[in-house]
Amino acid sequence: MLRRVVAEWLGTLTLLATVIGSGIMAEQLADGNIAIALLGNTIPTGAILIVLILVFGPISGAHFNPAVTLAFALRREISTKESLLFVVAQVIGGIAGVFIAHIMFGNPIIDPSTTLRTGLGQWVGEFVATFGLVGTILGCLKARPEAVPYAGGLYITAAYWFTSSTSFANPAVTVARGFSDTFAGIHPANVIPFIIVQLIAATLATAFFRWLLNEKSSMPKP
Amino acid sequence: MLRRVVAEWLGTLTLLATVIGSGIMAEQLADGNIAIALLGNTIPTGAILIVLILVFGPISGAHFNPAVTLAFALRREISTKESLLFVVAQVIGGIAGVFIAHIMFGNPIIDPSTTLRTGLGQWVGEFVATFGLVGTILGCLKARPEAVPYAGGLYITAAYWFTSSTSFANPAVTVARGFSDTFAGIHPANVIPFIIVQLIAATLATAFFRWLLNEKSSMPKP
Amino acid sequence: MLRRVVAEWLGTLTLLATVIGSGIMAEQLADGNIAIALLGNTIPTGAILIVLILVFGPISGAHFNPAVTLAFALRREISTKESLLFVVAQVIGGIAGVFIAHIMFGNPIIDPSTTLRTGLGQWVGEFVATFGLVGTILGCLKARPEAVPYAGGLYITAAYWFTSSTSFANPAVTVARGFSDTFAGIHPANVIPFIIVQLIAATLATAFFRWLLNEKSSMPKP
Amino acid sequence: MLRRVVAEWLGTLTLLATVIGSGIMAEQLADGNIAIALLGNTIPTGAILIVLILVFGPISGAHFNPAVTLAFALRREISTKESLLFVVAQVIGGIAGVFIAHIMFGNPIIDPSTTLRTGLGQWVGEFVATFGLVGTILGCLKARPEAVPYAGGLYITAAYWFTSSTSFANPAVTVARGFSDTFAGIHPANVIPFIIVQLIAATLATAFFRWLLNEKSSMPKP
Repeated sequence: MLRRVVAEWLGTLTLLATVIGSGIMAEQLADGNIAIALLGNTIPTGAILIVLILVFGPISGAHFNPAVTLAFALRREISTKESLLFVVAQVIGGIAGVFIAHIMFGNPIIDPSTTLRTGLGQWVGEFVATFGLVGTILGCLKARPEAVPYAGGLYITAAYWFTSSTSFANPAVTVARGFSDTFAGIHPANVIPFIIVQLIAATLATAFFRWLLNEKSSMPKP
Repeated sequence: MLRRVVAEWLGTLTLLATVIGSGIMAEQLADGNIAIALLGNTIPTGAILIVLILVFGPISGAHFNPAVTLAFALRREISTKESLLFVVAQVIGGIAGVFIAHIMFGNPIIDPSTTLRTGLGQWVGEFVATFGLVGTILGCLKARPEAVPYAGGLYITAAYWFTSSTSFANPAVTVARGFSDTFAGIHPANVIPFIIVQLIAATLATAFFRWLLNEKSSMPKP
Repeated sequence: MLRRVVAEWLGTLTLLATVIGSGIMAEQLADGNIAIALLGNTIPTGAILIVLILVFGPISGAHFNPAVTLAFALRREISTKESLLFVVAQVIGGIAGVFIAHIMFGNPIIDPSTTLRTGLGQWVGEFVATFGLVGTILGCLKARPEAVPYAGGLYITAAYWFTSSTSFANPAVTVARGFSDTFAGIHPANVIPFIIVQLIAATLATAFFRWLLNEKSSMPKP
Repeated sequence: MLRRVVAEWLGTLTLLATVIGSGIMAEQLADGNIAIALLGNTIPTGAILIVLILVFGPISGAHFNPAVTLAFALRREISTKESLLFVVAQVIGGIAGVFIAHIMFGNPIIDPSTTLRTGLGQWVGEFVATFGLVGTILGCLKARPEAVPYAGGLYITAAYWFTSSTSFANPAVTVARGFSDTFAGIHPANVIPFIIVQLIAATLATAFFRWLLNEKSSMPKP
């Protein structure tokens, strides 16, 4: 199990180093054109996600995301104990990834974000983003498991643009981005509402896609 | 059949949320450079289309498009009754996707477009776009069905740029985009001519590719 | 054989409609930033090439390019008669694609280019571009034939940027682009030297990769 | 063995012609917006890397990189003699690729870079970039070898943006880029520290991923 937990840690670390690092690079170079900066943030994030799922998928399943781990726990495909270890590894890894990005670019290592991301539109955005991400993984995993890395990376590529929140869709990522006052940051006070919406969306998506994919329920009955 | 119809509804909803949402995001951020805005609209649309065909293809065939449903109906690969249900689900899903994008970005929920898209050049554009889309699906489906999701997404990625209409190529998408006075909108008065051209192109493409792919006709004889 | 020739015609037509059409669209929207215009020309061209090789590959081999047809003729994998029909179809299809792009965008249908593309640097560029394209196809076809569509499209995506000529690498494309005084045009007087370099490069690449791939020669002995 | 060495030479040559050539093209056209120039450098580099690994992978393994060759030598999957020949071919090929790019674009053939790339942040960047590249290759090679070309190209696509050094991650590339006073150049005085960091990172990644992938050690015991 250690290898699996380390894989979650290193994968989430690399994901956050990419989200934050490419955000810093893109904003520094984009000369004030935010759409170009977002392209320079989106393309690397989508690309690294494909790579990380290809590399770590066979080891740990490549969740990198407590909302995804929740979905698999609800489906009883991962034990409660391992789920909790995964979530701890994801959060610690995510924060470590932010710190590494800050070291590389010469920013203060801990640098709480001042970017406000709140309001109904953004919360609907996070609901849509997370519901879609969990649905993408569960749907693709059933019928075309070998395509999951590409589906995951391409989904986030799209969701960066079509959701008003730029699609965090991941509680570990949300916590970690609170530590970075850069392009991809989020004010720490806005973190909890995002996470609540993400966990609700993941739960509903798990139930909905169990029906849509015509799978027998393995969720606990109340 | 309910699951299949719901898949068409949810897929078209997600497609439109992406087309409209990324259009709003891209235009807001692009600082007046329309080519950058179109990049920010194209890349998410192509990416989500690949994802949606991967996820929903095994359930409903992933049409999301009355012109595509027409092609399969002409080929007698889907019943008339299911075709009609699919089209209804696509149109309702498309409009719902527009509304969700508007909610996320704080636009008026219903907001009829004022963007004129008309004239011979644009209609030729829609003919080319739809003929090519149907040909891509039928051609790829025969010889390399596992590549259809990628072919579909990449075709639309290209067609956004090489057709003068930016390639609607889809009656449900055309209707839905009439409800959005944003980057990707179309004036409601211009919707009907687009749809007529799309349906003609789909019919001709179905016939032409049946010959090119050397398939026995299963179309009704007059 | 008719279906194969028609596939070459329609594929080359679509390729040129994309090259010219996306060039017009990109230049019109890019507000004078030529790098953005080239991105808007590159991404659609690479994408449509993947689609066209996926769709037409199983029918005709998806050459769309007299230099590629020459390579397969030298390898005796296509008869001389069919080679000549392919080249005629490619040239006619390419010119038709330019005309369709002009109709869509409201340009004069025949509109000879005034863009000078000449000199040692550009000819070296065309040599590199064509040598690499033929090598990509022959190398990939031997070991991973199912990846040829992606390799072809991604090669051109790169070559648009790393060669000084923006990589025509195709005599039919070169002739056709002479008819378009738009972003992707070439002055008719510069066409012949490009084609000579392309055919030399294709011949040398065919010989070199036969050795590198350790294949028995099937080329005519002098 | 000659074919394998020539494959390494030609692949590294093409990689560097792309890195330098697309850098020159992108910077010339980007009108001072460096983020757009980096997009125009990133997309071609990622694309050509996928192509080169597809084409040359079955011949030589497609290292194009002394750090990667070191990893395979530590794993005893390539002999010391062949490793050394590979490294020589990679360095000569890389420099030749720079010269070809300079000829195509009319730059002085040898043109030492004046771009300073030094300091702790950049060295951490090179460590992260090379560790990740070697991990990507070893991890993907074990579980999904057919996806290595895509993983390699997408990893570099991301690393160009998320590392502060723009990810050289390759001693042969670093040496070669010292010869080019263009967008992608590096001052010759900064080359040695980059290479030292890259070789350390490759060694540590080889050891770490041997553990993570649960492989029996085949490395020499001290």
